[in-house]
Amino acid sequence: MTLPRLNLGEFVHSLLRIVLGQPHIPPSLANNALLQVILRRRSVRHFSSRPIPDDVFAAILEAGRLAPSGVNLQTWTFAPFTADEWQATFGRPIPFRGQRAILIMGDTHRAKSVLDVFPDSPLVEYTIAVMNASLAAMNMNLAAEALGVSSVMLSETGRSGFLDAAYLRETLRLPDGVTPLMTLVLGYASRPYPPMPPKLPLAEITFKGVYREADPVIMRDWLAQMIAGYKASHLDSSFQAQVQVYLYKIGQAEAELQRSLFAGRTRHAHNTTEPNLQDG
Amino acid sequence: MTLPRLNLGEFVHSLLRIVLGQPHIPPSLANNALLQVILRRRSVRHFSSRPIPDDVFAAILEAGRLAPSGVNLQTWTFAPFTADEWQATFGRPIPFRGQRAILIMGDTHRAKSVLDVFPDSPLVEYTIAVMNASLAAMNMNLAAEALGVSSVMLSETGRSGFLDAAYLRETLRLPDGVTPLMTLVLGYASRPYPPMPPKLPLAEITFKGVYREADPVIMRDWLAQMIAGYKASHLDSSFQAQVQVYLYKIGQAEAELQRSLFAGRTRHAHNTTEPNLQDG
Repeated sequence: MTLPRLNLGEFVHSLLRIVLGQPHIPPSLANNALLQVILRRRSVRHFSSRPIPDDVFAAILEAGRLAPSGVNLQTWTFAPFTADEWQATFGRPIPFRGQRAILIMGDTHRAKSVLDVFPDSPLVEYTIAVMNASLAAMNMNLAAEALGVSSVMLSETGRSGFLDAAYLRETLRLPDGVTPLMTLVLGYASRPYPPMPPKLPLAEITFKGVYREADPVIMRDWLAQMIAGYKASHLDSSFQAQVQVYLYKIGQAEAELQRSLFAGRTRHAHNTTEPNLQDG
Repeated sequence: MTLPRLNLGEFVHSLLRIVLGQPHIPPSLANNALLQVILRRRSVRHFSSRPIPDDVFAAILEAGRLAPSGVNLQTWTFAPFTADEWQATFGRPIPFRGQRAILIMGDTHRAKSVLDVFPDSPLVEYTIAVMNASLAAMNMNLAAEALGVSSVMLSETGRSGFLDAAYLRETLRLPDGVTPLMTLVLGYASRPYPPMPPKLPLAEITFKGVYREADPVIMRDWLAQMIAGYKASHLDSSFQAQVQVYLYKIGQAEAELQRSLFAGRTRHAHNTTEPNLQDG
């Protein structure tokens, strides 16, 4: 994979685009406090040493517990950590010196103790697990924001998510059916919120009628902003090098996912019998 | 799959447990209006005919656009519908007579026009797509709540989500790499919010140290509540019959997912070369 190189003009132009990016909040709704919290939320990577009180942390976990889920199956498990517990478990500090962390896992293993909802359907089962756990993650993220606590969701940095699934499976003794997806790192922000990362315009990510292929001009502009933003915040490394690390970890994660999803399963074996709606 | 049958005592006891279920909001945080909105959100299936204003709908979509995503890849596409547009597209009303709907898709197809981030890693690619799109879905759900708009996320009802992926792929001409996950149905609630569906206790869905197997007493109690809740709200059908329908649709969805994820791909072919950190 080769990335385009930016000349100085493209670099400066792209950085400016990032700095000028703002949420589109209709003026008629600008006084809605919760909407402001939701639209101004940012991924924060600089935390102060101020501790998160227990009641605040409990309320954040409660938002995970009460998140919506497909058929209310609650296919998730959360491992909450203090900074000391994270250090003891993983032999390193919480990334970005967060005060607390919640490792979020998709979990279809637990419900199997009473109900085998997805026999021979590993991908459907996995989809439900990932979908529900991600809904819970976002609910916790916004509950934290509502309480003045900032956070970042990590899937790779510091062995914290699904790109390190094999390592986390071994360390936390996770059975198959439990997949680590991401870690929500929490703390009080020690700096003003950073600019919005380069977001695609609404017209590019929506369609009416039938699917519309990407606009190459918009996509190249977006990629230039991504590269410029990375260069500006990581002067000592390159986006290209970072991508190489990702590619290696992605290959490892793919092998682990294929093993854990299809181990002991027959692919393409599924129920095709018409359901009997009179039954039961 | 056979479900336990509840006797009358178990049925009444389980219903009572549901009605008495409440969010655990620490008294010290009970005055936080934003937290209240997040923890009191419910899936709503009864909407009034009051229309959703355009500025409100635009702010909800903006929450989707600005959701966090892994490596900021924004692997999602949203198809927004008015009631008329939904009727014209699918030949039926929006489920539960919602006023607007947003079909939420995982989309790794768009970014491929400029960057092939996940060569030969279909499951990692799919995981990112499902995770990010679900984060966006929850962000939109809560932005709606913040604006007084209620909603429900549907994956099956009314051919609205990933259990109907093949149908939606054909109808909306979705290329492989674009996976319909769920529809967010939106409207103003016409009744008070329903009781909380039976939620597992926090102690059951969290662990410290290493993974802890499910408590069979708690899981059987939860399943009894699920069955009782279904019986109480669907007097004309049974949970068992509903499960049979799901099983059939799950089998179809599994076949479509396996086709679309692995079509033209070699399984277990992935990059295992150590990354060269000096490169780039």
